[in-house]
Amino acid sequence: MTDITLETRVRDSFARQTMMQTLDAQLVSIAPGRCVIRAPIVDHLKQQHGAAHAGLAFTLGDTAAGYAALSVMGEETDVMTVEMKINLLSPALGDALEAVGQVMRAGKRLTVVTAEVFALQGETRKSVALLQGTMIPVAQR
Amino acid sequence: MTDITLETRVRDSFARQTMMQTLDAQLVSIAPGRCVIRAPIVDHLKQQHGAAHAGLAFTLGDTAAGYAALSVMGEETDVMTVEMKINLLSPALGDALEAVGQVMRAGKRLTVVTAEVFALQGETRKSVALLQGTMIPVAQR
Amino acid sequence: MTDITLETRVRDSFARQTMMQTLDAQLVSIAPGRCVIRAPIVDHLKQQHGAAHAGLAFTLGDTAAGYAALSVMGEETDVMTVEMKINLLSPALGDALEAVGQVMRAGKRLTVVTAEVFALQGETRKSVALLQGTMIPVAQR
Amino acid sequence: MTDITLETRVRDSFARQTMMQTLDAQLVSIAPGRCVIRAPIVDHLKQQHGAAHAGLAFTLGDTAAGYAALSVMGEETDVMTVEMKINLLSPALGDALEAVGQVMRAGKRLTVVTAEVFALQGETRKSVALLQGTMIPVAQR
Repeated sequence: MTDITLETRVRDSFARQTMMQTLDAQLVSIAPGRCVIRAPIVDHLKQQHGAAHAGLAFTLGDTAAGYAALSVMGEETDVMTVEMKINLLSPALGDALEAVGQVMRAGKRLTVVTAEVFALQGETRKSVALLQGTMIPVAQR
Repeated sequence: MTDITLETRVRDSFARQTMMQTLDAQLVSIAPGRCVIRAPIVDHLKQQHGAAHAGLAFTLGDTAAGYAALSVMGEETDVMTVEMKINLLSPALGDALEAVGQVMRAGKRLTVVTAEVFALQGETRKSVALLQGTMIPVAQR
Repeated sequence: MTDITLETRVRDSFARQTMMQTLDAQLVSIAPGRCVIRAPIVDHLKQQHGAAHAGLAFTLGDTAAGYAALSVMGEETDVMTVEMKINLLSPALGDALEAVGQVMRAGKRLTVVTAEVFALQGETRKSVALLQGTMIPVAQR
Repeated sequence: MTDITLETRVRDSFARQTMMQTLDAQLVSIAPGRCVIRAPIVDHLKQQHGAAHAGLAFTLGDTAAGYAALSVMGEETDVMTVEMKINLLSPALGDALEAVGQVMRAGKRLTVVTAEVFALQGETRKSVALLQGTMIPVAQR
């Protein structure tokens, strides 16, 4: 698969994820085995302390990891999360969250992925969450 | 802490979580060691296949587990997620998701929790996700 | 598969796991979707505080969960762990550890399992660890 | 804490872990935030397919991660595993396993760690497992 095909394919899938629009998330970059997604930390996605909700960090990390996995799967497949674990390192405070997903091992049946989520504030970039999980190919509809 | 105090305290905290309003989530019940939350599966919270996004199941499960933990902590404390793992059992299709959070062990420093997320469709109730994680008390602001 | 076939098949596989012999572990029971394993807490399997090593609780829980999964798979298959998470609830002190593995969802491609590990001391039985993970069928050799 | 103090302290603790002796494990190196442990893959620590048991990879990874965490904690403390997740990437075949534990974030109350486990065979070194978890300081006895 060429990089252009990959980019088109992931952007199409991303556009179909209404959750990504609700989060105002953007696909920053996609390359074989690596995907970066960014979303602003806005008032309507917070927990009770005013930081971004753990669910936001999870959703961005899981999605970045999922597209990283998809980038190494066959063209006719789509991807689903089997399981994902998140460790929260720091409160997610700042202007935006950036999730970097990476493939650790691409297998025939399963792909193991990690993601790191950073809080961006002005020039600073602080790691706020680590994810590790498993993705599985599914037939495209 | 009386059950009325507990209910008031959790409802207050829940109301401050803007993420819960964005998801149109409702606190169904709270009792010592157990919390139930429900949210409709709506068009703007889906993944690319039309099922609810894994991030929605995670966010509801994590929040139900967090309030279950808070219910067994001291009155002056609040709660944060240390880490959480989710296994997705089935696509989250239906009218709504219901998350049932439970305390498995309340320790002085940490509380171990689980949550199960069900997809509700008409009269049926299907388990779609299992979560297991750790909560920590933090000073209330 | 009859229960006798299942029992024979699991006992054969268990006997080939030399790790189980090193831990002096015994297969207590096997039934469709559920497996119980027990091992003594002995001096040579401890951590630096004198409790059983987390690795012992993990190994027993993982193995009980694996055989629970195998019990619902086809006769010609064997089973491997995809991923497993353990939360340690209490120090594993006592005479023996007992691991109870259970199938939460048996799928065509993957099986989701949980396990609980108990420390046995005289008449008491205390929960010391919770596990949640994923098993995959593999071709039998 | 000087590096000599750190090395002495970790070697003393390691020597008290009888499980490490049973596995014939050796402490290869310890430095602030990083610990390497190695153990031979021997006949009595295998699963039913002849590869090293998942429990061996877990035990080595968990222990390397634990000492990495201890290396950044106060001198009077010891360390325990709160929770740990392992993804198995490949069958653990070869002469030995090497676990590399690393601190990802050292907090006041908790330390987040990762570990990678490699199978060593002749000159080759293959990644067979990834771990991500949480360590907690405990009073030294």
